[in-house]
Amino acid sequence: MTTPKGFSFSVAEAAIKKPGRKDLALIVSEVDAVISGLFTTNKVKAAPVLLDLKRIRSGLARAIIVNSGNANACTGSQGIKDAELMTSLVARSLGIAKDKVYVCSTGVIGTPLPMDRIRRAIPLLVNSLSSYGVKEVAQAIMTTDTFAKVYSKTINMKGTEVAITGIAKGAGMISPNMATMLCFVLTDASITKEALDRAFKTSVQNSFNRITIDGDTSTNDTALILANKQAGNQTITVRSPYYQDFAGALSEVCLELSKMIVRDGEGATKLITLEVRNARSQRDADRAGFTVANSMLVKTAIYGNDANWGRIMAALGRSGIAINPSKTDIAINGVIVVKNGLSTGKDAEAQALMKSKAEIALTIDLHMGKACGKVLTCDLTEDYVKINAEYRT
Amino acid sequence: MTTPKGFSFSVAEAAIKKPGRKDLALIVSEVDAVISGLFTTNKVKAAPVLLDLKRIRSGLARAIIVNSGNANACTGSQGIKDAELMTSLVARSLGIAKDKVYVCSTGVIGTPLPMDRIRRAIPLLVNSLSSYGVKEVAQAIMTTDTFAKVYSKTINMKGTEVAITGIAKGAGMISPNMATMLCFVLTDASITKEALDRAFKTSVQNSFNRITIDGDTSTNDTALILANKQAGNQTITVRSPYYQDFAGALSEVCLELSKMIVRDGEGATKLITLEVRNARSQRDADRAGFTVANSMLVKTAIYGNDANWGRIMAALGRSGIAINPSKTDIAINGVIVVKNGLSTGKDAEAQALMKSKAEIALTIDLHMGKACGKVLTCDLTEDYVKINAEYRT
Repeated sequence: MTTPKGFSFSVAEAAIKKPGRKDLALIVSEVDAVISGLFTTNKVKAAPVLLDLKRIRSGLARAIIVNSGNANACTGSQGIKDAELMTSLVARSLGIAKDKVYVCSTGVIGTPLPMDRIRRAIPLLVNSLSSYGVKEVAQAIMTTDTFAKVYSKTINMKGTEVAITGIAKGAGMISPNMATMLCFVLTDASITKEALDRAFKTSVQNSFNRITIDGDTSTNDTALILANKQAGNQTITVRSPYYQDFAGALSEVCLELSKMIVRDGEGATKLITLEVRNARSQRDADRAGFTVANSMLVKTAIYGNDANWGRIMAALGRSGIAINPSKTDIAINGVIVVKNGLSTGKDAEAQALMKSKAEIALTIDLHMGKACGKVLTCDLTEDYVKINAEYRT
Repeated sequence: MTTPKGFSFSVAEAAIKKPGRKDLALIVSEVDAVISGLFTTNKVKAAPVLLDLKRIRSGLARAIIVNSGNANACTGSQGIKDAELMTSLVARSLGIAKDKVYVCSTGVIGTPLPMDRIRRAIPLLVNSLSSYGVKEVAQAIMTTDTFAKVYSKTINMKGTEVAITGIAKGAGMISPNMATMLCFVLTDASITKEALDRAFKTSVQNSFNRITIDGDTSTNDTALILANKQAGNQTITVRSPYYQDFAGALSEVCLELSKMIVRDGEGATKLITLEVRNARSQRDADRAGFTVANSMLVKTAIYGNDANWGRIMAALGRSGIAINPSKTDIAINGVIVVKNGLSTGKDAEAQALMKSKAEIALTIDLHMGKACGKVLTCDLTEDYVKINAEYRT
């Protein structure tokens, strides 16, 4: 895996998660990087989110410190102090300004961080930095994730290789409005702040903001991108010829990470790609898509390999969009099960396909207008219930 | 159980559900009854709903024919014809006008009704009418319900006894905007159409429209009340002294039936009463209540007896209401677990209580205004998933 130049990584164990599991990670850029970020729209924001929201105004970053096992959310003024302390401990150990250190947390809400153990671990993190630890960082930020999520992409700009690497975690409390939980994208591209902001915003809109596992938006969702210009390319601006190449590669990184998050949705057995076509407006397309995607009845039907399109019709009907049931078509993995609101009698055919596939494509054609929207989601299984009933025990 | 005078009941087997289970029910008033009704707000409305919506304009009813096992929804013009035929077959057998016959269906969406078998069963239904069959009707309309839902109440008006009996079914695809699936209330009261409409609307608003099991609003939700004036009381008007007595008794009937529906939510082990206090507006109180009530993460935490209030805070934060996290208090069965947005350290105490109770009271005080709202819901368990993954198999 090619990773971007000028970044180093390390992980440590601060006993925030269960013993024996890494729960602290550090990402450092050797020079100032341009930073862009998107954060949860939840009104209950975790302390690290509040702090990063302030710091990101400068547009510059040198390091990100992340812990898993504890969200540092609903922890009041102590939580803010702890988040600040994490960044100043890192800054001191690295000999850099604390304003250029960002912090992210993920895990249980409402419990103070074990700052003594974090304080002891930070110098170890700084001492063990290496350019090879991307995968270990992805592992250390996992909570209920079952696999580490990393995706890399390189682009060639007039002979100069530019690398983009994304790291993400997901698994539960996943819904749009910044749906990623945590995502860190690193690139050695030289790019203006304006171009980075625009490319990242678009990429996130079309990836992390189009996935949902359970409709619950987290208090900690954060996506950060750092561009440290170590590749040596000509600086990308919004008007430069390479902007589209960069934006396209970044979109691919974000989309692949989003898919990994959904595929690793808590208890999930199916990855569902839901496309709403010909809605009256974008808002309608998205609302219909997310209503169907979050319907427990649709999710459980898909888990059961049941082409129960009646539940899809019912979800569309309550979604609040403009709909004419007698114009609606529904296809499952290409098999049209509903035409003009009526059964085509092909449920059995669709079900046979569903049984044999781990990827389900639901296509809903409303025939009401021209807007289209895509949502990625997963099925709802007994294991989702089990994982979340036992999460804190 | 005292049931209202002048109503008779019967059930039959038309092999719509699995063999050996009653799936057809008939309710008849011996004289014209005043009728009031509320129907699903889902834009995808089942054929019987569309027909009843037309018929109810007359304000008069003689009979209700109900089938379970098939929703007669998304069945196009054939569905409408079938719904009409069901009412005309009943009308012919009873020798009454078909416009006074109402029809309700519940079950699988998108499959045509087996009209031959229904046609053969209707004369049997009419021949076996009796005043004792309320419980049997409640059983025949069940789908995934595990118990029959009937509640009766009598009120004394100057020595005249007036009876109100409600019959309901629920279990899944339950959410507000007419949340009842099917509910039939029968009373022998003499009451004006205006007073009946008002009392029923208020009762439904405060009961069926305040429950949610999975956030899915059905295509078939219907609540009907028939008042046949056989009790001999002085006619109740909106201004008569007995209006409040009647309305209060009716509210009790609807509320008790609502609780039965939630208690019998698919796979449910806990009945959750959620109260949002001091919201900025009624809309905020309701929106917060339903967002928390429908959160899969909150539901699974309660199933796991986990006082995981962080998930409640996260759900409040994404609900779109006016909230100040540092003013928010949360209590579980009277134990304050969150004060001013922070843990009180009483999770263990709350959890001990949760383990020992099948009824959970969640109280959320937003301290943002004066509006309050109540929602009834249940937990989310592996059995909900199992029931709904296997529903059509």
